[in-house]
Amino acid sequence: MPNLSTASSTADAAPVDLETSAGESDHEALRLWLRLLTCTNLIEGDIRSRLRQDFAVTLPRFDLMSQLDRHPEGLKMGELSRRMMVTGGNVTGITDQLQQEGLVTREALPTDRRAYLIRLTPAGREAFSHMARAHEAWIEQLFSGLVESDRRALFRLLGRLKTSLTTP
Amino acid sequence: MPNLSTASSTADAAPVDLETSAGESDHEALRLWLRLLTCTNLIEGDIRSRLRQDFAVTLPRFDLMSQLDRHPEGLKMGELSRRMMVTGGNVTGITDQLQQEGLVTREALPTDRRAYLIRLTPAGREAFSHMARAHEAWIEQLFSGLVESDRRALFRLLGRLKTSLTTP
Repeated sequence: MPNLSTASSTADAAPVDLETSAGESDHEALRLWLRLLTCTNLIEGDIRSRLRQDFAVTLPRFDLMSQLDRHPEGLKMGELSRRMMVTGGNVTGITDQLQQEGLVTREALPTDRRAYLIRLTPAGREAFSHMARAHEAWIEQLFSGLVESDRRALFRLLGRLKTSLTTP
Repeated sequence: MPNLSTASSTADAAPVDLETSAGESDHEALRLWLRLLTCTNLIEGDIRSRLRQDFAVTLPRFDLMSQLDRHPEGLKMGELSRRMMVTGGNVTGITDQLQQEGLVTREALPTDRRAYLIRLTPAGREAFSHMARAHEAWIEQLFSGLVESDRRALFRLLGRLKTSLTTP
């Protein structure tokens, strides 16, 4: 079973069980939200430190490359920003850096001179696929503490939650 | 039912269903993680824009005040940083600003002259309780699309996930 306490990279960053900060008197929906957020934070924090340790990359940079990898046709800057799954990254800054490293190209669009299409280069795709394989193995490990039937039930329930959040 | 599409504050920030960026060939644990992250992002994004619209405060500022509210004895800066549930906030900057507005105090510790204890002032506590009431109502609304039994089952499963993530 993964233990995020030992996976933490800095000694004084011992994870606090954030959900317990909800007092006994807090209501059910709030406790559910804090638990959801805590689980997400635990996993995201673990992935963040592993990416830093093993690949010396930030989570926003990984996230950005991941979105480009899923869209080989390229993405405009605005689309890229909107698709980012983690906050706190500077999309323009990361893109500039990736371009300098030869991992993305930026191509002017004939239809709109102010817009650019960002794409991974073959080198960018190769660098990403390396990280993506490791990332998937970490995720599998992180969820391995749940039995298969619990993982399926969780997937179903989160699907209902997502639908209820996005359906008018 | 809450509809996060219409709750979005800017027209061109139409939410993308981030989870669908996982292709069919992605594995089960990865799809579960992306669904978990998508649900968290949808709720967090909604709360972020409501706090901005209704109270003109950022989510990190709300989060920071929330941690202080749960710790009337005060928190040292390091503890405060560690307890933050959202990333991207500048804890020192937010604390400075709250102090200027008379919402927190910063008190030197007799035991450690380099450490300060941060506490909400009565005005800070009052300002926070206003926002906290609205925040809880939003959260209740956001989860209201799930039936009671689904909310309970989700709470239980996330509890198992949390335990497996934090237990050696």
